[in-house]
Amino acid sequence: AMRLIIDTDTAGDDCFSMLLALHQPGVTVEAVTICGGNIDFDQQVENALYTLEVAGKGGKVPVYPGCRRPMMRKPIDAEYVFGEDGMSDAHYPRAHQRPEASHAVQALIDIVMSNPGEITILAQAPLTNIAAAVVQEPRFAGAVKHLWIMGGTDNSLGNVTPAAEFNFYVDPEAAQIVMNAGFACTLSTWTLSVQDSGILAAELADIAALDTPLSRFFTQVNQASVDFSMARYGVGDSLHPDALTCAIMLDESLILESGDCVVDVETQGRLTRGYSSVSSPRLPAQEVADPELGSATPANARVIRRADRAAFVQMMRRALGA
Amino acid sequence: AMRLIIDTDTAGDDCFSMLLALHQPGVTVEAVTICGGNIDFDQQVENALYTLEVAGKGGKVPVYPGCRRPMMRKPIDAEYVFGEDGMSDAHYPRAHQRPEASHAVQALIDIVMSNPGEITILAQAPLTNIAAAVVQEPRFAGAVKHLWIMGGTDNSLGNVTPAAEFNFYVDPEAAQIVMNAGFACTLSTWTLSVQDSGILAAELADIAALDTPLSRFFTQVNQASVDFSMARYGVGDSLHPDALTCAIMLDESLILESGDCVVDVETQGRLTRGYSSVSSPRLPAQEVADPELGSATPANARVIRRADRAAFVQMMRRALGA
Amino acid sequence: AMRLIIDTDTAGDDCFSMLLALHQPGVTVEAVTICGGNIDFDQQVENALYTLEVAGKGGKVPVYPGCRRPMMRKPIDAEYVFGEDGMSDAHYPRAHQRPEASHAVQALIDIVMSNPGEITILAQAPLTNIAAAVVQEPRFAGAVKHLWIMGGTDNSLGNVTPAAEFNFYVDPEAAQIVMNAGFACTLSTWTLSVQDSGILAAELADIAALDTPLSRFFTQVNQASVDFSMARYGVGDSLHPDALTCAIMLDESLILESGDCVVDVETQGRLTRGYSSVSSPRLPAQEVADPELGSATPANARVIRRADRAAFVQMMRRALGA
Amino acid sequence: AMRLIIDTDTAGDDCFSMLLALHQPGVTVEAVTICGGNIDFDQQVENALYTLEVAGKGGKVPVYPGCRRPMMRKPIDAEYVFGEDGMSDAHYPRAHQRPEASHAVQALIDIVMSNPGEITILAQAPLTNIAAAVVQEPRFAGAVKHLWIMGGTDNSLGNVTPAAEFNFYVDPEAAQIVMNAGFACTLSTWTLSVQDSGILAAELADIAALDTPLSRFFTQVNQASVDFSMARYGVGDSLHPDALTCAIMLDESLILESGDCVVDVETQGRLTRGYSSVSSPRLPAQEVADPELGSATPANARVIRRADRAAFVQMMRRALGA
Ligand SMILES: [Ca+2]
Ligand SMILES: [Ca+2]
Ligand SMILES: [Ca+2]
Ligand SMILES: [Ca+2]
Repeated sequence: AMRLIIDTDTAGDDCFSMLLALHQPGVTVEAVTICGGNIDFDQQVENALYTLEVAGKGGKVPVYPGCRRPMMRKPIDAEYVFGEDGMSDAHYPRAHQRPEASHAVQALIDIVMSNPGEITILAQAPLTNIAAAVVQEPRFAGAVKHLWIMGGTDNSLGNVTPAAEFNFYVDPEAAQIVMNAGFACTLSTWTLSVQDSGILAAELADIAALDTPLSRFFTQVNQASVDFSMARYGVGDSLHPDALTCAIMLDESLILESGDCVVDVETQGRLTRGYSSVSSPRLPAQEVADPELGSATPANARVIRRADRAAFVQMMRRALGA
Repeated sequence: AMRLIIDTDTAGDDCFSMLLALHQPGVTVEAVTICGGNIDFDQQVENALYTLEVAGKGGKVPVYPGCRRPMMRKPIDAEYVFGEDGMSDAHYPRAHQRPEASHAVQALIDIVMSNPGEITILAQAPLTNIAAAVVQEPRFAGAVKHLWIMGGTDNSLGNVTPAAEFNFYVDPEAAQIVMNAGFACTLSTWTLSVQDSGILAAELADIAALDTPLSRFFTQVNQASVDFSMARYGVGDSLHPDALTCAIMLDESLILESGDCVVDVETQGRLTRGYSSVSSPRLPAQEVADPELGSATPANARVIRRADRAAFVQMMRRALGA
Repeated sequence: AMRLIIDTDTAGDDCFSMLLALHQPGVTVEAVTICGGNIDFDQQVENALYTLEVAGKGGKVPVYPGCRRPMMRKPIDAEYVFGEDGMSDAHYPRAHQRPEASHAVQALIDIVMSNPGEITILAQAPLTNIAAAVVQEPRFAGAVKHLWIMGGTDNSLGNVTPAAEFNFYVDPEAAQIVMNAGFACTLSTWTLSVQDSGILAAELADIAALDTPLSRFFTQVNQASVDFSMARYGVGDSLHPDALTCAIMLDESLILESGDCVVDVETQGRLTRGYSSVSSPRLPAQEVADPELGSATPANARVIRRADRAAFVQMMRRALGA
Repeated sequence: AMRLIIDTDTAGDDCFSMLLALHQPGVTVEAVTICGGNIDFDQQVENALYTLEVAGKGGKVPVYPGCRRPMMRKPIDAEYVFGEDGMSDAHYPRAHQRPEASHAVQALIDIVMSNPGEITILAQAPLTNIAAAVVQEPRFAGAVKHLWIMGGTDNSLGNVTPAAEFNFYVDPEAAQIVMNAGFACTLSTWTLSVQDSGILAAELADIAALDTPLSRFFTQVNQASVDFSMARYGVGDSLHPDALTCAIMLDESLILESGDCVVDVETQGRLTRGYSSVSSPRLPAQEVADPELGSATPANARVIRRADRAAFVQMMRRALGA
């Protein structure tokens, strides 16, 4: 049995990740916490509430609004990917459930500290909420059972700049705080997503053909991502970084390859804001390469290198066909 | 006909690159300029002189000692790859030819500025000499016919840190100066080298079997690289970033794929010293991704994405079999 | 009437500042919040509780423990100035009052947001607590009546490095967040303290001669600062940055000169961690000096340039003689 | 007897410094080297040549054009202080002497290395030329007798930004290279200039009343500085950082107070480009203040803290009255 908090900037794929977790037997979603990221903050809250309703969980999972903007940087957004409402401009009606009055950071600390070693967190947004919890309560990291992070790159191209992926780019200071806080932690990178989170056009059609309420919701909300992919790459598929991260958390047999790495985040660079440095066994020992670097610190994250895309798509299909 | 200056930190593969160029019909190597990098500076000078002698060019190509250390950073070296003498500890005798009295930077400026548009430069070392020439003479970049650079990464793993390749890491300020100086320029990255510059164990055996003076020289000098590869990766092959860069310069038909990119170099980061930012058509326009980034600057380098490894090995074999 | 929260890393002068505020008619200290800084965090909490007791306010002002360490940096401390217990190693007994269970950041947000425009904050520690409140609740800054900050320098020598004062150096990211959050704010710098916060040896003797419980407490707790000054500068006086800041807050007629300035904090430098950039009317317009700098942003802080030292000492004498 | 090279961005006060040195018995100005800085580079060359002519040294001191722009940064200028021609828009005729063909960096290296321990350098411009010489020839610093630098601040306000003085701001990388190169070196800062380099309105009138060719030249060229001072500060005096630096070099008895300091230059900051960190005996040992800082490096520059302004003005008066 998994007790889960989902930290999310709810737009597009964030919703599908929620659906996967909400659908999974044995998983209790204890809270959804909202963090500034993809689109307008209040719309993100509404999207989370609406997704719960669509999943038949309206009123059953509290939604806590959290940090509206990054710790130190100007907010940026990803409306150009997800549409203005983050839902392919579906403009859904307001859900009946309303957000909690208390703050996500407080909720995270309260739930985790009163259930030490019990709570898993899926962080699929910029890491501002998680970092703020760490700043406020240094024992937070040690009390979380496992932190699953969608963010960063694994020595490959980013999606905001060559150096950086969106979640880490938006709030690099938060990412640095979190990566160095001592969490038991797994990192699911944009690099992995590009490789193994795609749902192909034919598979999308299969999902649409299920014609369930959830599959219709998926197909509608996913439209902007498909359009973006078509416009940019000429291919009608879509990438699912958050949903893939959720999937491998729900079923670790989807992890085909991973490594324990030293991961840190650049906050000082001119070209490299939010770059995630991920160690590699292919590199010489860093103190040999440059004695000034000193010895490497111990591994602080398991980095997923390869995931079972077919099984992921199957899991999506099952959840959406329910 | 190509009029060429080779800027080199002569150790291991630097020598093979020199052999390729010296052997190539229609190419005049006008000078060899030495830049601090792989190993002890004076030994690098000797290695260049000895390589000329081995190639039968002793006394025919002037060797100019240049900048002994990076502009602003403490020197590091790569003796752990190439042996203490940079020649797999072969400890060759001193060549008859002696280095020129004048400085590489002065030689570069003098030769290029008195032959505007005529001189090609192959830069296969940290870029200190080239950058110093730019600082001293801003018209230098515009007067060079083409600059071929071995350095940087192409959105992939470095070889000193995850973020950076040796030549750019050693002198990032020089690399930044050079990349922004306005050269007509081609970049051959470590990423390309990992992919397409390897000579496999069987091919190395073929080269050894040629049993010519040059093949014997190659086999001996290459030993440390093979040992390094064997010790680290369990494979008895060797990588040839400098020689591959020279090969594609000598015969551009070896370039199978390339793109015009915006390339810049990180000098400010805590984890990303010497990171080469290489733009990608897969990224959203940067002003869409983050309006603060403004519009991208025009492409300033052709980046090689794929090279013909088999043809490269053939070229090496021909040169060494002569 | 002033409703005040004191945010403090309680050691030495922090206590005297508390005494001033607690003694002042018309001022209600609504809370004391503790922030990591001068010495061991838990000892700081005890020092605050004991100071309340000494001031006859034991049990009447809640003390909220806050952030134990800086947002991103390793903690440093100032035990070398204040003694191991921050009280000149007086090792006072434990106060009867105990700290609150809830966190300083939560308390700050709750008190301020439920009394918008009513609460004054005196920040005499690293700014981690205040910044964490801003990160969590962006409306916090606008809801505070006035924020008085002891920190930074005013184009003069720091006290940790040449570039930086202790509070800003310890948590530069927090300082940057706070200075850019939109507070109505006054900055009392280390530069001001060096100039106008000293209590001279003869004045210290006068205070000792009062021989009240508070004057004895002061004299004992202040001993380490006097010793530090004597050892370093050969003068038996002591500096009182926190108490001076409190004094000018309590009686603004002590402000002899001030200016509205653009203040920002360096977090990226190699030598300048925590440097406070304070604009000056003596500088050319920055867009004239360097067009790349663009136009200056509007003033965000009143910076105190000169204070009435004699009146400050009088205020201390009155409070301690009571 | 002093053998001197003056490195200058010849505009306004740079000329007066030249006049002082050229007038001084026992001083041989071996070369003037021009570095990009105050105004248009070629105009700077002309200003140096014209100043030599005015001083009666036309054709007797070679003028070498050097680096036209900073190593890595976009050039900025100070035309807003000195007028478009750097000579208060006097638009003097072209001098008869023409600049040398060879480059300042080469000249600096050649003269110094062939006269080791003999040559004094007065650096009154951005440090690009000197740094380029160091990069090219690491023995350069050790072969210079003494380097006098006008640049940086001494824990006080800059003149481009709060953090930085013009010469260090324009080329911070060069300044960092030079300060760490191992020169026997004296630093005359903007802080010193503000305090002790002013020539008061009455003194300016006295100089004008001398009515010699040199005093007329001075009065005319100095006009823009006086106007700038009047417009900005409402005072009709002028500051003479370069001339004061020259004066204390020519007669060290003008140095009233100085200290051996650790000086370094910030190149990484967001707000602190070109900040000069100058150590102070008033600071705690840095490894006590923050153990991560490690032990301080040895002093690398004598920093002038107080100069004899009256004697400086006298020296100017004598030189201009000749
Ligand atoms: Ca997300
Ligand atoms: Ca090389
Ligand atoms: Ca304090
Ligand atoms: Ca000057």
